Amino acid sequence: MTITLTNTTTLQKDMLRCVSCGKEYPSESVRHICECKEPLEMGLFSGKVRSGGSVWRRFRGFLPCQPSKKLSIFEGDTPGVKAKKLSKEFGVELVLKNETVNPTWSFKDRGTLLSLQRAMDIGVKKVGTVSTGNMGVSVSAYCKRAGLDPVVLVDHDISNEKLNQIAIYGGTVIKVSGDYGDLYYESLKIGKNKNIYFSNSNSPYRIEGYKTISFEIEERSLPDYVVIPTSSGGLFRGVLKGFVEMEKSGILDRMPVPICVQAEGCSPICRAFDSHEKKIKRWHDPDTIASAIANPYPPGGEEVLRKLDDHNGICTTVSNDEMISAQLKIASEGIFSQPASAVGVAAVEKLREKEEIEEGAEVVSIITGSGLKHLFPRPTEHLEFSCDISDLKDLFEKSRKDEIE
Amino acid sequence: MTITLTNTTTLQKDMLRCVSCGKEYPSESVRHICECKEPLEMGLFSGKVRSGGSVWRRFRGFLPCQPSKKLSIFEGDTPGVKAKKLSKEFGVELVLKNETVNPTWSFKDRGTLLSLQRAMDIGVKKVGTVSTGNMGVSVSAYCKRAGLDPVVLVDHDISNEKLNQIAIYGGTVIKVSGDYGDLYYESLKIGKNKNIYFSNSNSPYRIEGYKTISFEIEERSLPDYVVIPTSSGGLFRGVLKGFVEMEKSGILDRMPVPICVQAEGCSPICRAFDSHEKKIKRWHDPDTIASAIANPYPPGGEEVLRKLDDHNGICTTVSNDEMISAQLKIASEGIFSQPASAVGVAAVEKLREKEEIEEGAEVVSIITGSGLKHLFPRPTEHLEFSCDISDLKDLFEKSRKDEIE
Repeated sequence: MTITLTNTTTLQKDMLRCVSCGKEYPSESVRHICECKEPLEMGLFSGKVRSGGSVWRRFRGFLPCQPSKKLSIFEGDTPGVKAKKLSKEFGVELVLKNETVNPTWSFKDRGTLLSLQRAMDIGVKKVGTVSTGNMGVSVSAYCKRAGLDPVVLVDHDISNEKLNQIAIYGGTVIKVSGDYGDLYYESLKIGKNKNIYFSNSNSPYRIEGYKTISFEIEERSLPDYVVIPTSSGGLFRGVLKGFVEMEKSGILDRMPVPICVQAEGCSPICRAFDSHEKKIKRWHDPDTIASAIANPYPPGGEEVLRKLDDHNGICTTVSNDEMISAQLKIASEGIFSQPASAVGVAAVEKLREKEEIEEGAEVVSIITGSGLKHLFPRPTEHLEFSCDISDLKDLFEKSRKDEIE
Repeated sequence: MTITLTNTTTLQKDMLRCVSCGKEYPSESVRHICECKEPLEMGLFSGKVRSGGSVWRRFRGFLPCQPSKKLSIFEGDTPGVKAKKLSKEFGVELVLKNETVNPTWSFKDRGTLLSLQRAMDIGVKKVGTVSTGNMGVSVSAYCKRAGLDPVVLVDHDISNEKLNQIAIYGGTVIKVSGDYGDLYYESLKIGKNKNIYFSNSNSPYRIEGYKTISFEIEERSLPDYVVIPTSSGGLFRGVLKGFVEMEKSGILDRMPVPICVQAEGCSPICRAFDSHEKKIKRWHDPDTIASAIANPYPPGGEEVLRKLDDHNGICTTVSNDEMISAQLKIASEGIFSQPASAVGVAAVEKLREKEEIEEGAEVVSIITGSGLKHLFPRPTEHLEFSCDISDLKDLFEKSRKDEIE
């Protein structure tokens, strides 16, 4: 198998190359970023779609390794849910790619699967990650399944609610105060020194896992736009790489327009995009309820900017209020998403208003993780009554008749 | 299509019959229980397995109605996860049927789908349910999707955590103090008077939806035992009905042994089973962490007893400590289950110790719902450290070296 980079120079199998300066590294190293601090990435795979019961089998020619039964608990192959009400409201054909039904209820499992499969294949003994929530849960779950004890570096003010989701798997949690963006680089340094494989957001095998989302989107129906909540840049890069590989392989004859969405209160990529800068500047004092996408100094940010440029992509932000409103709209289709996952639908609404998305366009928005992971504060006020069972009949018969019936 | 009851008398299509006294009712009524207070049930379907992308299509001949795209958000077709560690530990071939990856992260969605499809088909305007958690969330989600406002009757001391999962869908919640077992019957009375379709645990179309779990179990590999966490009895009855229908249709040549599991602190069915009684006595002062299976007066309990008798089933209880231990064991396979969902694995361990399950037997345990819905109290003590980012390297280098590495 040969794999090629976008610039068409051939990259040897099992090599990694820097997305920025092009320096190459053997993939046996646990290295995830280049000396220049930009992410490493595998070359472009090309191939044919085969038959198979899972996306991992059907697109096996596009993957650097196959997940083993020892590790996999059935990741991906998630549904595209047609959002009828929202399609009508926005004047588009909107599909919600529901990643909340993955094994640990977020898209991270796709990347964790390949990343940890790789770790097992090369005999790694110790695994770590840096996480605000979804990633820590996912890595902990798969480590536990693989018999590896993970070290999870979390923000010092992580809620008990989020901590307990990680704690069930019994790993080691380190609460770290300081800049979350710096923590990514600090973890990789420690990983190198202490021989710990950090399965962080931009790790190359993780990107390969996220590609499977694009494969499934294509299998259902190729949309005009794909909307991607973006923090460190891993999901965005993975989804783009998947579409590019399918186009190179002749599976697609056009690319969907990628839409990168960030939270207004922490949007270093969109700020750089808007001011036509190629470098990401650190975002000071992030302030957003979308904790899952609040990386103030995203390690893949500059590559996201390059990919937006290559593919005429759109970059936009949404406010807390807009994402809460979108969360309720997504719930009206039956899906309870995290605030961070709702930014995509909020963006579609805004971009339709500004006519940056044309009427009738087919749009897929990736619902990245379950709202169960982010229950507080309560996103809405429902109607609530209290009574004794002996008074229940009366409550229905007499009081507040209109509200209850 | 004709459908038959176990006693072989033919039941007309669209009729319901009492599982106890045999009285028949037209299915157009919103009636779910007989005058004698026992559940109503549809007759036995028989047919052939067809081709199709979902269990609802493949087993369409066994279902009273087909889910519409307006309502369905891809329920069921959940994976059977081979539990390698636990299989070795217990000396069986254990498969975890992972219902936590349904749209609202519990098995309830299968029943809600058919139950609400039926409600829509017969023009119901108002839907309600009685719920400790999973059911309220599921019914609220599907009502919202269908454009119906639900009334959810919950226990007066429901946690904010559980309430918020329902609140996202914006329905009406009534917190009721009093006996949870009585609330089931009270809700049906109110439903009859006020023309509200209560999609409760034992509603006939719900049972039809739960059957699909058996169909999928059979498709993977017919086990020797199926372990079913049991509260009101709906899941148990649905799973049994599915297997019986497949046997009648010649798809199976034997039935798996059903194992009904209850929480020690609220086990009215197991108490009756152990004392060879045919009637369920109300359980006073339920005391268990497994809130999802803590119905003190289960409406389908006597039918569960009859089915256990018909199929040489096993009935057993597990303690809080046993289910917490099982929850951690399930997590070691990568799945975070509710305590109520862990009772099945706890039961397998106990029954193996007592040699009521033979060595090497194939066992499927149904993991009914996600642990994310039940985060408190924390089920385990993980290792936890705190530090500033500037001290992180030192923490790895020097202090508590053994614990971290």
